[in-house]
Amino acid sequence: MKIANIETPVLVVDRPAFEENLRIMDGLLSKSPMTLYPHYKSNKCLEIVRRQLAHGAGGITCAKVSEAEDLVAGGVRTVVLANQVVQPEKIARLMALAGKVDLTVCVDDAANVAALARAAAAADVRLKVLVEFEVGLNRCGVATADEVIALVQAVARCPHLAFDGIQAYAGQLSHETDAAVRRTAVLETERRVRELKAAVEAAGFPCRHIAGGSTGTVADKPADTPYTQLQAGSYVFMDSTYAELALPFRPSLYLLTRVLSVRPGRVILDGGVKSFTMDQHAPVLPDLPGVRFELNEEHTILFSPGREMRLNDLVRLIPGHCCTTVNGHDRLLVVEGDAVVDEWRITSRGRAQ
Amino acid sequence: MKIANIETPVLVVDRPAFEENLRIMDGLLSKSPMTLYPHYKSNKCLEIVRRQLAHGAGGITCAKVSEAEDLVAGGVRTVVLANQVVQPEKIARLMALAGKVDLTVCVDDAANVAALARAAAAADVRLKVLVEFEVGLNRCGVATADEVIALVQAVARCPHLAFDGIQAYAGQLSHETDAAVRRTAVLETERRVRELKAAVEAAGFPCRHIAGGSTGTVADKPADTPYTQLQAGSYVFMDSTYAELALPFRPSLYLLTRVLSVRPGRVILDGGVKSFTMDQHAPVLPDLPGVRFELNEEHTILFSPGREMRLNDLVRLIPGHCCTTVNGHDRLLVVEGDAVVDEWRITSRGRAQ
Repeated sequence: MKIANIETPVLVVDRPAFEENLRIMDGLLSKSPMTLYPHYKSNKCLEIVRRQLAHGAGGITCAKVSEAEDLVAGGVRTVVLANQVVQPEKIARLMALAGKVDLTVCVDDAANVAALARAAAAADVRLKVLVEFEVGLNRCGVATADEVIALVQAVARCPHLAFDGIQAYAGQLSHETDAAVRRTAVLETERRVRELKAAVEAAGFPCRHIAGGSTGTVADKPADTPYTQLQAGSYVFMDSTYAELALPFRPSLYLLTRVLSVRPGRVILDGGVKSFTMDQHAPVLPDLPGVRFELNEEHTILFSPGREMRLNDLVRLIPGHCCTTVNGHDRLLVVEGDAVVDEWRITSRGRAQ
Repeated sequence: MKIANIETPVLVVDRPAFEENLRIMDGLLSKSPMTLYPHYKSNKCLEIVRRQLAHGAGGITCAKVSEAEDLVAGGVRTVVLANQVVQPEKIARLMALAGKVDLTVCVDDAANVAALARAAAAADVRLKVLVEFEVGLNRCGVATADEVIALVQAVARCPHLAFDGIQAYAGQLSHETDAAVRRTAVLETERRVRELKAAVEAAGFPCRHIAGGSTGTVADKPADTPYTQLQAGSYVFMDSTYAELALPFRPSLYLLTRVLSVRPGRVILDGGVKSFTMDQHAPVLPDLPGVRFELNEEHTILFSPGREMRLNDLVRLIPGHCCTTVNGHDRLLVVEGDAVVDEWRITSRGRAQ
């Protein structure tokens, strides 16, 4: 099938750019102590996960139990749930997975450690645990080495839990556009994490893993980083928000739209904010640089687009945020030039529980 | 089932508030010449459509061919597609529907009228047409009576198309928060539409319908409005953006979240911008008025929430925009007090083509 015939609006992946992003990440990690555990939140697509594993990923990171279930059902053998799981109904689902694969979860609360330990004992499964350390994101995680060590000790007392290291995600740095500021902040985070690791190990608990990092910061990590698991996700697609950072990756994800109406001074496209998200930047129109536009639910209105446009002409938008945009679609059409070469189901579209 | 046991984040509808909104709309329209053709874009849910039809809706409005297909499959007999359909593949699907139900589509382009006429003749079906008049939204639609009449004449020349009136949606007024400004602008739109209708009818073409209007402007419509079809959709749910307008409707749609982590000075909830949208206002937390918060993909971070909160406590968010939020979910849990009383599938979730 040709692009000219596909119904719009539709999310497409440019295969050459996508595959180049996999290779660029391979290159960045080739001399690094980090292994990629790519974050499933950015693609939610088992077709992509299989390609990431083929490129040497050590496991897959995810945010929700429902995502972990889809990964396990899809054959993934090593899953890191980089989030807390506290609702009893979800802890029960987590234990069902822990019986099947190498599963890791994060903790930042002693009562939650106790609940996980009871459930793991009852299910007779072994669950790996990362203690979450707060490194400036101001989200989950404890803030001091003493608190981390207290949680590590709580985990170590539970025979069905295995302390595996530290989760330390400095998400506030991922979109820092000033490269010097970002680099300095990354190195400061590295220093804090190295210091924490030394304190935990001095208390008698080896940290097999330090997990975190992102597409925005991977190129800033020093060769002697204490991090072992890189949880980047967006690198496969990029988006208009990450485009501000001048990273080595290429845009590969587009919303393909068509001209629905041509009026004096404006052109209306057939896709809007029901087909991409607005939690980060607005989309960018790579084929019409600088054009002013307004966004409605099902329409994008281009003002004075600067070239003649006709009904049904195709126009590409680079979404503002790949992770949330992909989450709203059922499939990705894979394109190369003007041909549609594959179709990938977005396995965990909308899975938030 | 009790709310206490449902997995979060989850979108819920408060049944008493939802049903009251249906009755409030009945009251507003009881002495109006307008019949409600509620817009499917706001709920995408056949369970809700059936309740709207039971409350006297004259038909259902939608924006996309795929939505119209779901409505027809669900037994709806009168569908108004308040948008242009120009892609050949979609025109073919439109004709398949026109053979089954009373179907109306909008036009603003003579070439599109010709394409629809050819397809309707080839399929031997009858398609109703509204000519779209641009009344300040700056989207689709022609701007002058002469252009409208030229399109009406083009439609009238096609034996398989039936001119049915004018589409005139002043969407730019729907969220005007100054009630006096809104009211004045609504009356000015009414004047323009009345004048247009007179011109079209003087040219020999009766306008059976004038379609448009929204949740934000329904209460401002005068008793002698020329509008006959009211295309409001959000009134069943409301959202934090419409809440700024002091409308007669009540919030009925909530994202239910749980406390995932309690840290010094902040509390982290288990739902974020993957579970609601940010194309209009941020969500509002009705149970924690005034609390400052930050939004991540899968988390909402409350700062100094002002009361003691514990892991798994439930917190409600009123989404910023009901239409785009519903579009990302598979189901609505219907609640009354602390009980879950029903579950409605969001039939056309993600349908954008």
